Amino acid sequence: MAATITRHESSAVYSKVVEANGFVFTAGIVAARLDAGVAGQTEEILAEIDRLLALCGTDRSRIVSATIWLSDIRHRDAMNEAWQTWTGGRDMPTRACIEAKLAHPDMLVEIGVVAAK
Amino acid sequence: MAATITRHESSAVYSKVVEANGFVFTAGIVAARLDAGVAGQTEEILAEIDRLLALCGTDRSRIVSATIWLSDIRHRDAMNEAWQTWTGGRDMPTRACIEAKLAHPDMLVEIGVVAAK
Amino acid sequence: MAATITRHESSAVYSKVVEANGFVFTAGIVAARLDAGVAGQTEEILAEIDRLLALCGTDRSRIVSATIWLSDIRHRDAMNEAWQTWTGGRDMPTRACIEAKLAHPDMLVEIGVVAAK
Repeated sequence: MAATITRHESSAVYSKVVEANGFVFTAGIVAARLDAGVAGQTEEILAEIDRLLALCGTDRSRIVSATIWLSDIRHRDAMNEAWQTWTGGRDMPTRACIEAKLAHPDMLVEIGVVAAK
Repeated sequence: MAATITRHESSAVYSKVVEANGFVFTAGIVAARLDAGVAGQTEEILAEIDRLLALCGTDRSRIVSATIWLSDIRHRDAMNEAWQTWTGGRDMPTRACIEAKLAHPDMLVEIGVVAAK
Repeated sequence: MAATITRHESSAVYSKVVEANGFVFTAGIVAARLDAGVAGQTEEILAEIDRLLALCGTDRSRIVSATIWLSDIRHRDAMNEAWQTWTGGRDMPTRACIEAKLAHPDMLVEIGVVAAK
């Protein structure tokens, strides 16, 4: 039997979060406040991920995998500080953190996650 | 009990599409026609993804997550136009779109997706 | 009912491997021996992936998807040689291989995989 797929907050090009087969996939999330610096952008992105996971009835303690793209790999320490505050050192997902040019030059961080429901 | 894994079109280094646990994973797909421009390469890639998903008994309406690598992030608008034509504005997956140098300098676009069966 | 999530070898920022819903996700794995060259780093990473998959009761024959980041896309042939020795030409996962700057300039290769249990 085909799995049920539930999509949330779809625009003309993507959905912000999609559920299927007990997993929740977020889009690559970027900050709206592009003048917020690495820490500020990371905080905004992680708060948005909290909100998207809640839409699907799950939360940050159930993330299994995170991909983090930084516009400059030297932003890693500043991103990690915000990340560690957010995770509280608990329920760590797997993670890959690489440098990549993002959609807008002022976007410094992009994060996408896969969570279990 | 171990999940059944079904692999399709395997070469010496990778399979083009693999099924397991109700999900279908495609390889990162690139175009064969490297002189086709961003829109043409995107169209070829998306047609190939249609073909691969069909091998697994699923289709573009059941994609949950897409990763799009562009050799130059400025190709985003041209890629998006082909993407929107293909999706028809329906059943949007989550998406991350980042810049990355690809295997050959004339490869402008690479797309990999995860779909539910 | 919520899926059981099992995390292994968690540090302050990530877990090396996480199990949920019949899938196993590894972190993006890099080599510790940064003077080992592309082939040597790839061999070390793949041995570490073997070890992590074994912790979860699965193995390389059950990988469904691999993402390979190279600090320079020209490392592709050297990485592929180590990859092909490791896979033995069997049970090929899907794969995406792209260039990305990694956490340290001497890290030449990073690989993350998703496997079925």
